[in-house]
Amino acid sequence: MNWWLNACKAPSEEAKQQAEARQLQLTKPTGSLSELERTAVQLAALQNQVKPEIKLPWITVFAGDHGVMEENISAYPQAVTRQMLQNFASGGACISVIAKEYNAQLQVIDCGSVGEAYEYAGVERHCIMPGTANFAKQLAMTEAQCLEAMNLGRQSAEKALAQNASIYIAGEMGIGNTCSASAVACFLLNEPAEQLTGVGTGIRAEQLAHKKQVIDQALALHKNYVAQDAFKALCAVGGLEIAAMAGAYIRCAQIGLPIVVDGFISTVSALIAVRLNPEVRDWMLFGHQSAEYGHRRLLDELQAQPLLKLNLRLGEGSGAGASLGIIKLACSLHNNMATFAEAAVIGEKV
Amino acid sequence: MNWWLNACKAPSEEAKQQAEARQLQLTKPTGSLSELERTAVQLAALQNQVKPEIKLPWITVFAGDHGVMEENISAYPQAVTRQMLQNFASGGACISVIAKEYNAQLQVIDCGSVGEAYEYAGVERHCIMPGTANFAKQLAMTEAQCLEAMNLGRQSAEKALAQNASIYIAGEMGIGNTCSASAVACFLLNEPAEQLTGVGTGIRAEQLAHKKQVIDQALALHKNYVAQDAFKALCAVGGLEIAAMAGAYIRCAQIGLPIVVDGFISTVSALIAVRLNPEVRDWMLFGHQSAEYGHRRLLDELQAQPLLKLNLRLGEGSGAGASLGIIKLACSLHNNMATFAEAAVIGEKV
Repeated sequence: MNWWLNACKAPSEEAKQQAEARQLQLTKPTGSLSELERTAVQLAALQNQVKPEIKLPWITVFAGDHGVMEENISAYPQAVTRQMLQNFASGGACISVIAKEYNAQLQVIDCGSVGEAYEYAGVERHCIMPGTANFAKQLAMTEAQCLEAMNLGRQSAEKALAQNASIYIAGEMGIGNTCSASAVACFLLNEPAEQLTGVGTGIRAEQLAHKKQVIDQALALHKNYVAQDAFKALCAVGGLEIAAMAGAYIRCAQIGLPIVVDGFISTVSALIAVRLNPEVRDWMLFGHQSAEYGHRRLLDELQAQPLLKLNLRLGEGSGAGASLGIIKLACSLHNNMATFAEAAVIGEKV
Repeated sequence: MNWWLNACKAPSEEAKQQAEARQLQLTKPTGSLSELERTAVQLAALQNQVKPEIKLPWITVFAGDHGVMEENISAYPQAVTRQMLQNFASGGACISVIAKEYNAQLQVIDCGSVGEAYEYAGVERHCIMPGTANFAKQLAMTEAQCLEAMNLGRQSAEKALAQNASIYIAGEMGIGNTCSASAVACFLLNEPAEQLTGVGTGIRAEQLAHKKQVIDQALALHKNYVAQDAFKALCAVGGLEIAAMAGAYIRCAQIGLPIVVDGFISTVSALIAVRLNPEVRDWMLFGHQSAEYGHRRLLDELQAQPLLKLNLRLGEGSGAGASLGIIKLACSLHNNMATFAEAAVIGEKV
C-alpha cells in the first residue's frame, strides 16, 4: 500500500566527484559558471555519468478540479480547466509551446475535472472523481481517491522512464488550485493562511482576504484528522493533480529519473513527496521561483535555489519548462568546453 | 568625428502596442508570463514587427590587454588573453559552446593584445596598441586610440546587420579588465573604488584591497583630465575592448539592431554608450546579473532588470549568451500560443 516508502535510487557519488574534477579543468576561472556548474554536477550524479545529457525532456501536466470553487476563491470560471486541457493537447498553451521549443514529450492527464465524459485526442482521461469535494466542508478526497491520484503520477513517471526520458517535469492545471495548495502548505509548515496564500492567477484584494478566511476555517475543520500527517493533509485539503505530482516525484526518485520542480503548486507537491520520503529531495532540481506569495518560503523549507526568477505565475509546468534551456546549456558547457590541457591555456593563478 | 552623436533608430510604438494587445489575447492569465512578455514586446518594438524573431543571434568577443597589469591586480597571467582568443576561435571556450547551442554567429576581435604578431584562423587581429598603457601612471589610451577601438565596435555592428543578425551580443576578454571597468564606472558614477570594485576572476582579499587602492590613485591622477566626460573617462582608465563594446552598442542602436548586454564590464560599456547618446538605452536588453560586486549598482543606473541571475562571473558575453534561450522562448510563446478565440477558452475573469 505505502509504495512511496520504498527506497530511492542513490545518486552516484563517483560520477559527482568526477564531474566536479572535470569542472575544475575547464577553461574558465574556478567556479565562474556557478549555478550552471552546480546543475551539471547534480545531473552527473543523478544520471551516473560524468557527462550528463538531456536527450528527451518529459513534461506531464496533471489537471483536476476543486470543490472549494463553491467558496468563490478564484478569478476564473471552472470551465477553463477543461478548455485548457484541450489547449494543451492541441498545441496552443504555454507549456505546449515550451515542449516544442525544447523537444520535450508532453503528456496531458485529466485526473478528475468537472463535467460530462469526453474524448480529446492527446488527453488521457481518468475520472477519479468529478473534481474534489469542497474542503471548506469535508475532506477533499478519501484516502482511496488520494492514493488513486498518486498512482496516476507513479504510472506517469514509469512511462517516462520506459520511453527513455532524461528528465521529468510535472505541471498542473486546475482552476482554484492555488487555494488548495496553500491549504496543504499551511498544514505542512504549521502556518496560518496569511503566510502562504497569494493572488494565484490574479484575484483582487478583497477576494484574497476571503480566500485566506476559507483556508483558515478549513485548517481548523481538518486539524484533528490531519494531525501533522502529510498524506492526510493531502486528503483533507489537497487536489487530485497535487497528489498525482507528489506521486510522480516519489516514483521518479525511486526509479532514477531527475525531476525539475515548477512553481508554487508543484513545490507543495514536492514538499509532500519529501515529507513522505526524504530521499526524494536528492532527485530534484528547481526551475523557477514564482511570483506567487509563499513560494520562497516553500523553497527555503526544501533548501532550494531555482535557476530562474522571471516572475511567472502561470503553472502548467511553465517555469520548470522555461529552465530546460538553461539545464541543457549547463550540460553542453560541462561536456563540450575545452580543458586547460586541451586548449593550452594557463589554468593556474599567479 | 563624433559619429556616436548621430540619432538612433526609433523603436516602433505601433508594433509595441500591437504586441501588447496580442499578449492580452493569449491563453493565460493577464500578465502571468511577466518578464517573458516584456521581452517579446520590447523586441516587437525594436524589430518593428508584431511577432519578433531571433533567427540569427550575433556574438562578438572583443579582446584587449591592460597596462595596469603591472600593478599586480589580477589572479591570472596576461598570456591568458591570447590563449583564450585561440580557444574562442577553436570552439573550446564557454562562449563558443553557447554560440553553437543557440546557432549564433561568433566573431572574435583582438583589439590589441600583448605579444608578437600572429595569425589564428577565426581571430580578426587589429593592433591598435599592444595593450593599453598603465593607467596608474598615464592615460590608458590617447583619444585617437580610443576612437579607433570604438570604430572596431562600430564596424562589427555594421557587419552583423549586413549578415542579417537579429540581435547583437558583445562580450569581452582581457586579463585585468575588471580593474579598468571599475575605474571607468567610478568616474561615471562619481564613486570611490570601494563602491564598484570586486574580485573579478577571483583575487584574494589582500589583492582586492590593493586593486581598490590602485583605482583610487588613478581616479585622483586623471580627475582633472576627465572632468566628468564619459569619453575622456574611457581614454583615461578604460580598455580597448571596453571602448569597442561601447562603439558597437551605439552603432547597433543607430542602425536598429537590438542589443543584449552581458555582465559587469559590458554594462560599463553600456553606461558609456548611454552617456554618450541616451537614445541607445532603448535598444538594450539585459541578459544576466553577474556575481561581480558593483554590477547591481550599474544596472540600477541604467534602470535595467536582467533576465538571468546565475552568479556567473566569466565574461566573454556568457551571461547574455545564456539568456538567448530565454529570449528565443519569449518570442516563441508570444508568436505561437493560441489566443482565447482560437482555443475557445474563456478569457474573462468571473
